[in-house]
Amino acid sequence: VTIEDRVSGFVEAFRDDRWLVAVSGGADSVALLHLLVEQGFRDLVVCHLDHGLRGTASTEDAEFVKSLAAELGLECEVGTENVKRLMAERSESLETAARNARHAFFARCAEKFQCHRVLLAHHADDQAETGLWNLLRGSRGLKGMRERQDLTTESGVKLELFRPLLGVRRSDLIDWLNFRNRSWREDASNQVADVARNRLRHDVFPVLDSISGRSAAEMICRALEGARDLEEVEAWATEKAGVLDPQGRLHVPVLRALPPGLQRAVVMDYLRKSGVGGIDRDLISRVIGLMDANSPPAVNLPGGASMRRQASRMFIRTKVSK
Amino acid sequence: VTIEDRVSGFVEAFRDDRWLVAVSGGADSVALLHLLVEQGFRDLVVCHLDHGLRGTASTEDAEFVKSLAAELGLECEVGTENVKRLMAERSESLETAARNARHAFFARCAEKFQCHRVLLAHHADDQAETGLWNLLRGSRGLKGMRERQDLTTESGVKLELFRPLLGVRRSDLIDWLNFRNRSWREDASNQVADVARNRLRHDVFPVLDSISGRSAAEMICRALEGARDLEEVEAWATEKAGVLDPQGRLHVPVLRALPPGLQRAVVMDYLRKSGVGGIDRDLISRVIGLMDANSPPAVNLPGGASMRRQASRMFIRTKVSK
Repeated sequence: VTIEDRVSGFVEAFRDDRWLVAVSGGADSVALLHLLVEQGFRDLVVCHLDHGLRGTASTEDAEFVKSLAAELGLECEVGTENVKRLMAERSESLETAARNARHAFFARCAEKFQCHRVLLAHHADDQAETGLWNLLRGSRGLKGMRERQDLTTESGVKLELFRPLLGVRRSDLIDWLNFRNRSWREDASNQVADVARNRLRHDVFPVLDSISGRSAAEMICRALEGARDLEEVEAWATEKAGVLDPQGRLHVPVLRALPPGLQRAVVMDYLRKSGVGGIDRDLISRVIGLMDANSPPAVNLPGGASMRRQASRMFIRTKVSK
Repeated sequence: VTIEDRVSGFVEAFRDDRWLVAVSGGADSVALLHLLVEQGFRDLVVCHLDHGLRGTASTEDAEFVKSLAAELGLECEVGTENVKRLMAERSESLETAARNARHAFFARCAEKFQCHRVLLAHHADDQAETGLWNLLRGSRGLKGMRERQDLTTESGVKLELFRPLLGVRRSDLIDWLNFRNRSWREDASNQVADVARNRLRHDVFPVLDSISGRSAAEMICRALEGARDLEEVEAWATEKAGVLDPQGRLHVPVLRALPPGLQRAVVMDYLRKSGVGGIDRDLISRVIGLMDANSPPAVNLPGGASMRRQASRMFIRTKVSK
């Protein structure tokens, strides 16, 4: 299966549209850009954010991206941000500050170019690393990046992120570039030296490959596809369970009749949609414990609200300010 | 949370029953045995299979287990198997031959002691290793061991396997034993030196712990609990989807109305229950492609049968022998 085959669905659907393309200058995003042009995309805006983290190399990355856009006859927007300073000002991790800075930059581009769809070059190796990393942080099941993701930035701008390369290995992108004699900026895609991710890539994946005799990245991506299906199934089942009464409260007899795993899914969905934060398995268990008519009729929720049981209904009572 | 807390549900439900307990002589199973006795289990049969893989150490393991059972006043059954020979005779991997030999041994014990329920000492670290290992083999989503597992052995004996320690860390079991001054046989629980598993344990988990700053085993176990919920939700949704007509065929208009992830779940379930082997994502996609009225009306299945579309139904036609 060629790279072109893997993106053909995306290409057919979206070739004639305008897109913002996030280009760091690294192999991944440079390959994405050339691929899009080769596949007939014309209305592309190359967007590059200089994070100011790599000294003169950062400036050279930006220059490289500008020349590339000019060579391809594409519009180009370069932004500059002092991510280290943002990080200090906002007491965020480097990764978080950098991500927020990128989103804010995309938001500015979106308004300037009247285009709210952003193409990102995340590929199968990134996806596998994300899956493993989320697993190490205790995700529910297995979770990767979405091919399409809706996002509202802090400034309130809505963006749609698209990742058409999630099924393509990094090494295939490099081969693709080399075959075409295209150059890129080494390390530019790793502007924010993500220590955890780099260690997964260099210290863990090669060992996993060697233990299983297969490509761990490919296996994890395959498992992630299955996990995506299960999320879709869960959304359908949560809806189909029909536990909400006309007032939007949980109907206890209906909830009780569901298998325990679906009870937990339904309660989690209810809490999430009610804007409750800090939902974990323990909280969900305590809310489900409310179904027992012999238990106390209320459970405290993070943030001061509470979940109450009354006349075979369960619902959230927000904190009453005095 | 103490170990006793973690097994209290199991203890309450099953304390008065008869159980076979698989005891290798290693820390895990020795801890399980002492814990059961301390929690008031009385009708236990200690079952030990000597795999014949560790030379005189194997014999010493068996002697250790026999003395322990005698000391605790419990019945004890020791079996001996030449797993290396079985492996050669049956062209199986060492792991598979050993597992089959254990199941055959449990089946003999089940008949002899009229008890078909077997307690196993798998703990949270085993569970995390299994989850990661299955992931590396491309499992659909995340898959671990079940707390309860029904099994029919090759000889046709039905067994129920129970794993009450899946929520307990190995180190907690060791502390528990040390606090009570109980001894065990080092390495006995690793009779079959599982190279992949040992490398995960020694070369991967410590690195993952150090990268994430948390216990990878605990995080993976947490994710596995979520994944178990999702499996339950999937089973419910597959049933609720109502795609089978009275003749047990897939009803295309109903199938078409489902979200793609649930379509795949339903088709996978249908193929599995029809005894089709070698089901992968590609096969499922091809079967789903049959829904398209413009496609050829049949798809070959592994094993010679085929899946056919006729009058808005899809069903399996078995190979007609001439």
